[in-house]
Amino acid sequence: MLNNSCNEFLNQLASGAAVPGGGGASALCGALGAALGSMVCNLTLGKKKYADVQADIQRIIGRTEELRNQLQQLVQADADAFEPLSKAYGLPKDAPERDQVMAQCLKDAGAVPLRIMETCAQVIELLEELAEKGSRLALSDVGVAAVFCRAALEGASLNVYINTKLMKDRALAEEYEAQADGLSAEWASRADKTARAVQTAIRK
Amino acid sequence: MLNNSCNEFLNQLASGAAVPGGGGASALCGALGAALGSMVCNLTLGKKKYADVQADIQRIIGRTEELRNQLQQLVQADADAFEPLSKAYGLPKDAPERDQVMAQCLKDAGAVPLRIMETCAQVIELLEELAEKGSRLALSDVGVAAVFCRAALEGASLNVYINTKLMKDRALAEEYEAQADGLSAEWASRADKTARAVQTAIRK
Repeated sequence: MLNNSCNEFLNQLASGAAVPGGGGASALCGALGAALGSMVCNLTLGKKKYADVQADIQRIIGRTEELRNQLQQLVQADADAFEPLSKAYGLPKDAPERDQVMAQCLKDAGAVPLRIMETCAQVIELLEELAEKGSRLALSDVGVAAVFCRAALEGASLNVYINTKLMKDRALAEEYEAQADGLSAEWASRADKTARAVQTAIRK
Repeated sequence: MLNNSCNEFLNQLASGAAVPGGGGASALCGALGAALGSMVCNLTLGKKKYADVQADIQRIIGRTEELRNQLQQLVQADADAFEPLSKAYGLPKDAPERDQVMAQCLKDAGAVPLRIMETCAQVIELLEELAEKGSRLALSDVGVAAVFCRAALEGASLNVYINTKLMKDRALAEEYEAQADGLSAEWASRADKTARAVQTAIRK
């Protein structure tokens, strides 16, 4: 899906087509945040002024690139999980297999935004470190990355809930919701804290 | 720039190349938000249940598509404004034209993120209306759009400040900063309010 041009991706998103939707867009938003983290690393590597932190920055960029790759794959995973679900909706209300098929589809479709959230949380943790160690010339980009990862986290959380809402297995629904709420509560505020710290430093 | 594949755009963003950076990424994030607004309109148009609001939705999608197009163009505009600035940095410190060239480049480079902010503000206003009138089946996407537009607004605001910080013309710097702060204060909180309303409705 990301092999399409950005213009084409945006056109598809804007259309009434089943995919991409808000879940895939959230994964892409997180990937933009991870990419900005990598950019800050690339602008810090090889600079004499930051000689002391080169090993840390090398470790961080290894992780931001890995997480960016995961988020890019989650754009497609979200589309792949949504398509069987939209077919399941189309089954006759009295089809004997309907409940079981729907249950499996909702389980799969809800798991993807949870993975998006977990992946964004890991990016946010690295951004906290980058805000301390990365090149001062790219500090604003750490802040932009943090607001994007927060948006991706919150967008994905909404996409967990649209699936759990329809689940008949309320134990699984509550488990997914508790995971989403836990990730939001911790990481949205940590992303916010990093973004605010960057904003304060830049306004000085 | 958006004619490149999404993967390629992300690779360029992650690299140490001068563009795209946090400003262009913010415009893209806003474009994703506007596209989600259009998607909600497309999922509402032609539906009997929403017969009463068809004219409103037609008006809204006309605007979200226009604003999306503007945000897509602002990705390129941000790159176009940054390149002369990065060349100006390279001028010898004692070059007689340096101050004047830098002043013009900073004025241009700071104006782009302000336009990104103004455009996102207009998308947010439309999302408020869509949260009321759009298809309930796509309500979560209105929320995702709102968190994206908020992130784009905040990311662009940081990019206003990195330019004003370097301006010798302090009157212009303060004018730009006042505009950015005014847009942030009003529209980040309105986007937040919309996102929270969606979240509350979806959790019911």
